[in-house]
Amino acid sequence: MERQGTDRIRLGMVGGGRDAFIGAVHRIAARLDDRYALVAGCFSSSAEKSRSSGADLGLDPDRVYVSFAEMAECEAARSDGIEAVSIVTPNHLHAAAAREFLTRGIHVICDKPMTATLEEARALAKVATESDALFILTHTYTGYPMIRQAGEMVAAGELGALRLVQVEYAQDWLTEPVEQSGAKQAAWRVDPAQSGAGGCIGDIGTHAFNLACTVTRAIPSALSADLHTFVPGRRLDDNAHVMMRYDSGMRGMLWASQVAAGCENGLRLRVFGTAGGLDWSQEDPNVLWHRPYGAAGRRLTRAGAGSSAAAGRLCRVPAGHPEGYLEAFANLYSEAAAAIEAHHKGQTVPAEVQYAGTAEGLAGLVFVDACVRSSRQNGDWVALEI
Amino acid sequence: MERQGTDRIRLGMVGGGRDAFIGAVHRIAARLDDRYALVAGCFSSSAEKSRSSGADLGLDPDRVYVSFAEMAECEAARSDGIEAVSIVTPNHLHAAAAREFLTRGIHVICDKPMTATLEEARALAKVATESDALFILTHTYTGYPMIRQAGEMVAAGELGALRLVQVEYAQDWLTEPVEQSGAKQAAWRVDPAQSGAGGCIGDIGTHAFNLACTVTRAIPSALSADLHTFVPGRRLDDNAHVMMRYDSGMRGMLWASQVAAGCENGLRLRVFGTAGGLDWSQEDPNVLWHRPYGAAGRRLTRAGAGSSAAAGRLCRVPAGHPEGYLEAFANLYSEAAAAIEAHHKGQTVPAEVQYAGTAEGLAGLVFVDACVRSSRQNGDWVALEI
Amino acid sequence: MERQGTDRIRLGMVGGGRDAFIGAVHRIAARLDDRYALVAGCFSSSAEKSRSSGADLGLDPDRVYVSFAEMAECEAARSDGIEAVSIVTPNHLHAAAAREFLTRGIHVICDKPMTATLEEARALAKVATESDALFILTHTYTGYPMIRQAGEMVAAGELGALRLVQVEYAQDWLTEPVEQSGAKQAAWRVDPAQSGAGGCIGDIGTHAFNLACTVTRAIPSALSADLHTFVPGRRLDDNAHVMMRYDSGMRGMLWASQVAAGCENGLRLRVFGTAGGLDWSQEDPNVLWHRPYGAAGRRLTRAGAGSSAAAGRLCRVPAGHPEGYLEAFANLYSEAAAAIEAHHKGQTVPAEVQYAGTAEGLAGLVFVDACVRSSRQNGDWVALEI
Amino acid sequence: MERQGTDRIRLGMVGGGRDAFIGAVHRIAARLDDRYALVAGCFSSSAEKSRSSGADLGLDPDRVYVSFAEMAECEAARSDGIEAVSIVTPNHLHAAAAREFLTRGIHVICDKPMTATLEEARALAKVATESDALFILTHTYTGYPMIRQAGEMVAAGELGALRLVQVEYAQDWLTEPVEQSGAKQAAWRVDPAQSGAGGCIGDIGTHAFNLACTVTRAIPSALSADLHTFVPGRRLDDNAHVMMRYDSGMRGMLWASQVAAGCENGLRLRVFGTAGGLDWSQEDPNVLWHRPYGAAGRRLTRAGAGSSAAAGRLCRVPAGHPEGYLEAFANLYSEAAAAIEAHHKGQTVPAEVQYAGTAEGLAGLVFVDACVRSSRQNGDWVALEI
Repeated sequence: MERQGTDRIRLGMVGGGRDAFIGAVHRIAARLDDRYALVAGCFSSSAEKSRSSGADLGLDPDRVYVSFAEMAECEAARSDGIEAVSIVTPNHLHAAAAREFLTRGIHVICDKPMTATLEEARALAKVATESDALFILTHTYTGYPMIRQAGEMVAAGELGALRLVQVEYAQDWLTEPVEQSGAKQAAWRVDPAQSGAGGCIGDIGTHAFNLACTVTRAIPSALSADLHTFVPGRRLDDNAHVMMRYDSGMRGMLWASQVAAGCENGLRLRVFGTAGGLDWSQEDPNVLWHRPYGAAGRRLTRAGAGSSAAAGRLCRVPAGHPEGYLEAFANLYSEAAAAIEAHHKGQTVPAEVQYAGTAEGLAGLVFVDACVRSSRQNGDWVALEI
Repeated sequence: MERQGTDRIRLGMVGGGRDAFIGAVHRIAARLDDRYALVAGCFSSSAEKSRSSGADLGLDPDRVYVSFAEMAECEAARSDGIEAVSIVTPNHLHAAAAREFLTRGIHVICDKPMTATLEEARALAKVATESDALFILTHTYTGYPMIRQAGEMVAAGELGALRLVQVEYAQDWLTEPVEQSGAKQAAWRVDPAQSGAGGCIGDIGTHAFNLACTVTRAIPSALSADLHTFVPGRRLDDNAHVMMRYDSGMRGMLWASQVAAGCENGLRLRVFGTAGGLDWSQEDPNVLWHRPYGAAGRRLTRAGAGSSAAAGRLCRVPAGHPEGYLEAFANLYSEAAAAIEAHHKGQTVPAEVQYAGTAEGLAGLVFVDACVRSSRQNGDWVALEI
Repeated sequence: MERQGTDRIRLGMVGGGRDAFIGAVHRIAARLDDRYALVAGCFSSSAEKSRSSGADLGLDPDRVYVSFAEMAECEAARSDGIEAVSIVTPNHLHAAAAREFLTRGIHVICDKPMTATLEEARALAKVATESDALFILTHTYTGYPMIRQAGEMVAAGELGALRLVQVEYAQDWLTEPVEQSGAKQAAWRVDPAQSGAGGCIGDIGTHAFNLACTVTRAIPSALSADLHTFVPGRRLDDNAHVMMRYDSGMRGMLWASQVAAGCENGLRLRVFGTAGGLDWSQEDPNVLWHRPYGAAGRRLTRAGAGSSAAAGRLCRVPAGHPEGYLEAFANLYSEAAAAIEAHHKGQTVPAEVQYAGTAEGLAGLVFVDACVRSSRQNGDWVALEI
Repeated sequence: MERQGTDRIRLGMVGGGRDAFIGAVHRIAARLDDRYALVAGCFSSSAEKSRSSGADLGLDPDRVYVSFAEMAECEAARSDGIEAVSIVTPNHLHAAAAREFLTRGIHVICDKPMTATLEEARALAKVATESDALFILTHTYTGYPMIRQAGEMVAAGELGALRLVQVEYAQDWLTEPVEQSGAKQAAWRVDPAQSGAGGCIGDIGTHAFNLACTVTRAIPSALSADLHTFVPGRRLDDNAHVMMRYDSGMRGMLWASQVAAGCENGLRLRVFGTAGGLDWSQEDPNVLWHRPYGAAGRRLTRAGAGSSAAAGRLCRVPAGHPEGYLEAFANLYSEAAAAIEAHHKGQTVPAEVQYAGTAEGLAGLVFVDACVRSSRQNGDWVALEI
């Protein structure tokens, strides 16, 4: 997976200055397989902070910007300008920033959700369609090899006809009103102006939703949601209960919570069909349980006996040598690199290279919007119209 | 827990003839701690089958009956007649059988659900109230020691104010239409005439509901349900998705399924409060996870360091020597024996002796009824009125 | 497994009075499947204690004895005398008690180890051979269904040629010198006069050894041991490290400890062959891991898909309904009942009925003796001569 | 942990050309936290292979060498020459290569074991002592944060006085004679000329040994070993059973195997003291079990509640976001970077910066030598003289 003899892709970053969490994760992910060189950035709207962050990273000060619009313009004008940009700001800036780069032919690797609102998402999808550049959304958890295998098994019919999808994402870091005592990561996530109409459902519910859609290759046709805010004074939901129906007859449940005391990053997906079930937990990501109906359960391991070529493409080290969250994230960057390199050569992206794009991003926003509307209507079933 | 110097309680049984599953379980449970002597039975409505079953069990042929009404009458007339009866028939016979014994002052130990219909349950609750005899419902899973401890921890406020209850009960034995190929255990469970209006939701959903209620000491005020039948031709639901709300502000989700391929007897309860969470799985019943918010998770084990006196009352062997389903069931019988013995002495049942009775039985039927109604109304929130 | 139409076997007990642990376990085990009736006992050498224990159990006072020799004599003389006796005293009394009953044609079900010393074991084996009665040793852990299956898989060659056996039994209840502060269960176990020359190695090392031998169908030809006493003042070993060699070329390690802080009853067996491995843990006894070389690991569950008929014979309830320690113990009693019933009919014991007898008991004492000798010789390899 | 504002350390590599496994791992590890720039290499003794490997990595062809001696000489002469070198060749080349760089003041980051033979190790230790440059050995598994925490807990006395250390490392990739069918990774490992006198014991036994020593802060004073070769025709051991004694009175067992069918990379360490135990498994590395004697087991998680500052230094992402093998390896490189940077500033290495050096490397060779000698002497106890 390590780069072999080709040049590194020149990468810029918007957001992700000192103290930001996800920016550093994107940088590690970009670096892991050595297929990118970070050469420019607009790390903060504070000039001082952007500058110091750029210096930390050893960037040429001329290529450290305070405005992403200026960055897009300048970099597009350079012969050695960036070929791709990572957007890692709070949600409400995704749309505007992405537009600047896409319209200038610079590929966008955007943290999820695609945008803060459904309207923005529809507009951005249009921009992306009209641009020659790629739009890639970093839904981290689909970067895990065993999720790749799970999707492949479903598609190959190994579970028979799907009946049930049970997905949950439980955390506890918002159990108390930490946003009121200076927790920066919490503050913007519970602010509708920066996050959009969904709190927990937008922040992590969308990950759960995307995971379920990716593995089942299906999107619910309708849902009934009960969003709730447990922490007094919080303005967005911190827990979400959702029931789902699919046109195929499949049914599902989704639970997302940031007040589930004792849960760290408990994303789990279970899928059941007429011929068997799959079970995967993000906190034990190197294992995929396959339980064929009427036979002993099979414990499939990353790169182990029984794991597939599709999963193997995303592995660096042998079975029993755990890969984790950063490797999953790096897989997104490596898939993006493969797509960008194909694009540069004027080729179609090979079928085995998979990533989330505008369709997945739009589905996420449609999902959040439907959950919010259903919940406001006391759980009425609401159709998802992509 | 073994009987010490007191006489065994004389026990009869209705149902549970050859080939029945749950009848044998009740007998083992009654025998384990040696506090009962099985002396009479009406094992089947087939005279031949009742007789042979009685002979298998070494009963006096004079005390093997074909009609439970006759059994109640005859046993009540004997000076050495049964003091208690176990009712282990299909659901639709519970009400009529229980009435015969209760009205004659014979204690009833009844398999769940209490009755097939809510109307029957309300009527039987009235009969029980008017009778001097006890009515005890065998909700197996609350017989586990670690569930006793869980309830005690909740009651003691160790989790803070409760916020969430997530309960699930997933099996796969009805994945295929086995009721059409002679599986007796399946056939009556999917027959509305014998089971009532709930299929999976009645058969195992009620266990999950009872478990949640027992541990949280609370009953939802309303629910929204999506019952579904996946197997063509089946007349009752085989999967249930339910969202729940409580007057306290607590929220919950319940999932019950008998078509979750690869699941054996996957009953799991998680409860989350402001100060911590609990997590218990029936397939690993000797362990209770306690996750205090902001501290390392604690793995509490049956009879182990950190387990409580309330749990210890229900244990026979030291930590690390697994107790299981039969021991949990036997705990119900031992609690029943303690209650009966107190009753015989004219004493109140000691506070530490806990068992499900008509209130819990009625709650179960109210739950099933609400699920069925909500689902028929496309998931409208329906109030639970006990 | 429940008795069907045959009479209960009349059972006596030696040892197991009030406060004894293992006596109550034997009684539950005997009762579980209803194939025995406890009718006589010599529960203690204290007349008062034996009497009160008998009364607790509802026995006829005439059949409660103070001397096991008297008991054997009296019971042998009665037409309704006991057919079998459970011996559950401290180790040093096993030989004398067993002899009294065997020589009178009464079957013996004896707690392990067979005797306190190797000399006694050889002598008792001779007595048993000469008696028409059966001698059955209760090595609890081989009563688990998944162990039955493990042995069957090994015998069928599913693992290929065996190479390695790694077995361990770790407890922590002797971490501190509890024997000095009145812990009765501890006191006799660390007393050479009551236990024999092995402490931990005799008490639980023999269980680990028996488990390994049962599953591999092999006995080591030589071993090298490092026994150690960690707790000051203790007179017998509380930790044992053992390396083993087999004539077949197989190698093994055995670790037994009663000072492994944090371990409850951690008996685990792993067996590896050229074609795969097995892994079983007593604290999770319903699961047997089968890891075929070059394929995904298979999680076999008691009574579940992939479990064998041999295991199924020892099950009472379906997969997912955990059975535990008491059920494993009850399986020993049910196998004993099957053997005794065959014996009474003059038939050979059916091949599927398996239990430990004098050969296994003798092997255990040979093992303890070899460990003690090797350790005294600073770990020299010592041959096991059965 | 990401580099902040300081220049990257200029790094070279010896070994690790195309198709090598561990070379790529070292490169990812060096890259992850962005504190190194790979600028030179001698990737193979084949000129063609070294050149193409350098090209893959985008190196200046002038700095791609065929001889490590030449590389050391040329790089030492450059003003922008490498400051450190990673040595990732087969074992028998470690000593000669390390010497070239150490004597020229270039820091050495060397894959384990330090050398192929004890003699070489003693000589190299002398060279390192006389050099001003650092010698850092990459014992991967001590790079895991929870191992750092384990060592800290032991040192702080949280387990009381240590009694037992049980360590095992089980793999199955040499179950069959894969070295005879072209498996390059296998071929050199089973060749005494390239690996030294230990096969499995040297390849992975040393990891297990180092892990135990690191956490317990102790080295055994003597050991008794039973090395064995199961696969016909193999020239080095593929399984090792070892018993250990410590001057403190502690005892231990070590099992290393490469023929344990079904095991992937099963490195597990358990340590028991008078006050509690620790349990850690490499395949689930984000969890450290702490079992205080007489209290509920505590599940400590990387970066989670209850994890220590010492562990936190080695973490990049929050609890519940698994870090794995590559992150552990990167921690070694980051600790090396911290040591090198301190060295460059003429400062002592801060106490919290920990890494294995010549002492640990020498201990590993002493261990292998003792195992081989003990085993040849039929398991005689052999003293470890460091």
